[in-house]
Amino acid sequence: LISMLKKNQTIVNLLEKYREMSLLGKINAILQWDMNVNLPPKAAEGRVQQSAYLTELITQKWLDSEFRKLVEAEESYGPETVTKEETAMIRNIRHAGKFYWNVPMKLIIDFSEVTSRAFMVWQKAKAENRYADFLPHLRKVITLSREIAEKLGYKDNPYDALLDLYEPGFTTADCRTIFGTIQPELSKIIKKIKDSRDYKTESPLTDGKNKYPIETQKEFADLVIRKMNYDLEAGRMDISSHPFTETLGHFDIRITNRYKESDFRESLMGAMHETGHALYEQGVAEGYDGTPLDGGVSLGIHESQSRFWENQIGRSFDFSKFITPHLKKYYPTGLKNIADTDIYRLMNLVKPSFIRTEADEVTYNLHIALRFEIEESLINGRSNAKDLPEIWRQKMKEYIGVVPKTDREGILQDVHWSNGMFGYFPTYTLGNLYAAQFTKRMRSEIELEKNVEKGELKPILIWLRKNIHQYGSLYWPKELVKKVTGEELNPKYFLEYIKSKYSKIYSLK
Amino acid sequence: LISMLKKNQTIVNLLEKYREMSLLGKINAILQWDMNVNLPPKAAEGRVQQSAYLTELITQKWLDSEFRKLVEAEESYGPETVTKEETAMIRNIRHAGKFYWNVPMKLIIDFSEVTSRAFMVWQKAKAENRYADFLPHLRKVITLSREIAEKLGYKDNPYDALLDLYEPGFTTADCRTIFGTIQPELSKIIKKIKDSRDYKTESPLTDGKNKYPIETQKEFADLVIRKMNYDLEAGRMDISSHPFTETLGHFDIRITNRYKESDFRESLMGAMHETGHALYEQGVAEGYDGTPLDGGVSLGIHESQSRFWENQIGRSFDFSKFITPHLKKYYPTGLKNIADTDIYRLMNLVKPSFIRTEADEVTYNLHIALRFEIEESLINGRSNAKDLPEIWRQKMKEYIGVVPKTDREGILQDVHWSNGMFGYFPTYTLGNLYAAQFTKRMRSEIELEKNVEKGELKPILIWLRKNIHQYGSLYWPKELVKKVTGEELNPKYFLEYIKSKYSKIYSLK
Repeated sequence: LISMLKKNQTIVNLLEKYREMSLLGKINAILQWDMNVNLPPKAAEGRVQQSAYLTELITQKWLDSEFRKLVEAEESYGPETVTKEETAMIRNIRHAGKFYWNVPMKLIIDFSEVTSRAFMVWQKAKAENRYADFLPHLRKVITLSREIAEKLGYKDNPYDALLDLYEPGFTTADCRTIFGTIQPELSKIIKKIKDSRDYKTESPLTDGKNKYPIETQKEFADLVIRKMNYDLEAGRMDISSHPFTETLGHFDIRITNRYKESDFRESLMGAMHETGHALYEQGVAEGYDGTPLDGGVSLGIHESQSRFWENQIGRSFDFSKFITPHLKKYYPTGLKNIADTDIYRLMNLVKPSFIRTEADEVTYNLHIALRFEIEESLINGRSNAKDLPEIWRQKMKEYIGVVPKTDREGILQDVHWSNGMFGYFPTYTLGNLYAAQFTKRMRSEIELEKNVEKGELKPILIWLRKNIHQYGSLYWPKELVKKVTGEELNPKYFLEYIKSKYSKIYSLK
Repeated sequence: LISMLKKNQTIVNLLEKYREMSLLGKINAILQWDMNVNLPPKAAEGRVQQSAYLTELITQKWLDSEFRKLVEAEESYGPETVTKEETAMIRNIRHAGKFYWNVPMKLIIDFSEVTSRAFMVWQKAKAENRYADFLPHLRKVITLSREIAEKLGYKDNPYDALLDLYEPGFTTADCRTIFGTIQPELSKIIKKIKDSRDYKTESPLTDGKNKYPIETQKEFADLVIRKMNYDLEAGRMDISSHPFTETLGHFDIRITNRYKESDFRESLMGAMHETGHALYEQGVAEGYDGTPLDGGVSLGIHESQSRFWENQIGRSFDFSKFITPHLKKYYPTGLKNIADTDIYRLMNLVKPSFIRTEADEVTYNLHIALRFEIEESLINGRSNAKDLPEIWRQKMKEYIGVVPKTDREGILQDVHWSNGMFGYFPTYTLGNLYAAQFTKRMRSEIELEKNVEKGELKPILIWLRKNIHQYGSLYWPKELVKKVTGEELNPKYFLEYIKSKYSKIYSLK
């Protein structure tokens, strides 16, 4: 670390204080990981208090007047006195600090209470399919989110302020361009696939008659994540109800997975997805540990790494060629006579459905498009929350061609809005688009097919490390994409990828 | 909690601050537990830093001048203004605070550095059987321990100051009386056992030819800890290289265990021992959570709970009667034709040996006696550290009748002194003595044999809850023993127990 500092005393002092905030954050991550993996049921309330206390300590440090003085010491941060890394550190601190410094404590506490209650009501409302019960709580969350956006500040659109929390530098206008480009194209492809001769949404391999023993699935996932060069001396894979990746320390990046006996795909794709996140975190320069450059730069770039491994690699024909012999060995009963083309098909079944988390590559971003449009419109007061179920159905019909019969499968399906996470959804699509654009570039530099077919994934990781991982949060997403691919984010790479891949699979014209 | 306070504002403010220290302590326990159970190898260094940071935060809070002012507000703590609980809280804070307030920060840091290095050297010196390598480090640890004792203060003997850290209220004089009483008697019994017709130190059941599958041992341990009424909704059992119990939260008391395929006894006794600790912690009054009355009162009383379940119950004939049919069912290959008397024998083989941690009930306290004598003499400068190997051999011969051939099996066997834990060893023996005295009392109030024989262990737990567990750290050990048994700690109960039990097993006269 010292090597990248110009020994600017203001920055040394600032980083000293930041290091404590970083330590507390990682300690909180240990609590969170343990909560999701190991917690005895009666310990839940106590753990919430422990974690809340750490959050309180971290908040105190952000609000500490000495710390703020150091951050605001403008004269120390001129280009002559600081390095590129130092400039980025200050930028990142100012970006993260905006929330603590601009949003009044009372509003943060109100928001936390309102969303806690909204989350509980949402769980019940979803189970009972009663949107009306959730509506008043959703309204409160929207109102407070708008207030937070006002406090954070923005140039054109209050939604910009929220989006920027998750994907620094991205605006509503960027999202409009992106979704405006991909939505009509993807909707067209879906129609074509549905009309194609080869259209099938289910496979006898995963209809529940075949059993894929959970212990075997664990071993298989272990094989794959080792092939991906996930460093298990600095990580581990456990079980949780929702898979996730957590950074507990610079050399302690853990993933979780889940298993379904009737279908081996979920645990395989889950392992690859989470390992994609973990490899990113494991690849950040060691010198960035405990500084504002530590960890992945944004949710979108993070998702690009998980989606890259899950989709660009895991769902490629080359990877199917690689794993098919292994699958036959691990699951001799169910997959004895399988061919790699069957596995490839199975991994890429397109099925327009109601549920985002179960969506295939073609429909996934359409689910996001409708969520982006709805939430942007809500934050700007152009839609009324009570009309959401109807708006949802209309857009589902228009974009994906299916209409959920219940709100549980519609407007109530996702947890995000109950938690007040407006501005989060677009990062999923950004991840998919970044991944396609990165892959295009990677293909021009390394022999992707030949390596993947042999299960030789090391050159891929080396490329990702060199071009993306090592930088941590040094470059913001827009800068990074330009640096890696030589141009700005362009949705055409994703569309080309989808068209080319699915035209072949479904013999489209 | 509020119900036991007289709403004395000084105490309310004090407990507010103490609650944060307690939270940080439990959070640190989460880190420690995870470190011993789950940590990826490369994460060790980072975890040490995270934990050290929490220790630093806790120390800052102990040294906080506002906190000290509240503790020293003498006039607030008169008997007219405070309850029994409040008085005990102040007493406990003052006791724990003595270390922070009396020992200068520089000495604490020196001690921490010296013991860290001594620990590393000890590991190597033990592996290579080279006491001379460890000697200079041990000398430094002794010197600093003496300095700490001087800073802490004492009446008669600097060793008192160290002992009091682990067992509040106990003195060197108390230990002298205890070991002076039990050592000659136990040494005599050992001799008789060795001369007895029935003397045997090994059993064909555990000679390595029988295999006790580890998965089965886990299930068996699970059966037993459930019988003991360990609340697994507020705890869990995992694996670690050394079994331990950790309190991560008031409803999160976890134990670990370890397994050896050739011998089912270690995991069975380990489970009962650790569950004994866990039941104590689970039984502390809920209102004490986060206060200075939380948790077990001392190492000795804690050990009385683990030894009670391990020895007084787990190694009793009644318990052998209860588990024998289960053992036969779980381990049909190895134990098909076993009788309860065989199991009882096997659980109570006496084998004078070099290693404390492998010692039986009869020899165990003799290992402690020699350690107490040596460390007390070292702290007072009456022995020279370079003579320890020889002193060790002499005392082993005199007390237990065996002489280790190497220092690895002698003076170098235990970790404690490298860590500077002088004053800790006697608490093991105190635990055994308390357990025997408590059991005697318990027998006069509940039908122990009949219940244990049926595996009906609930009445025992109810008795322990009522008489010991609920009080947490309200009563110090000496008070507690008197309250529970009506008299002071008396080693005769332990000696009676040992004599009566082993006279029968070995047909002694």
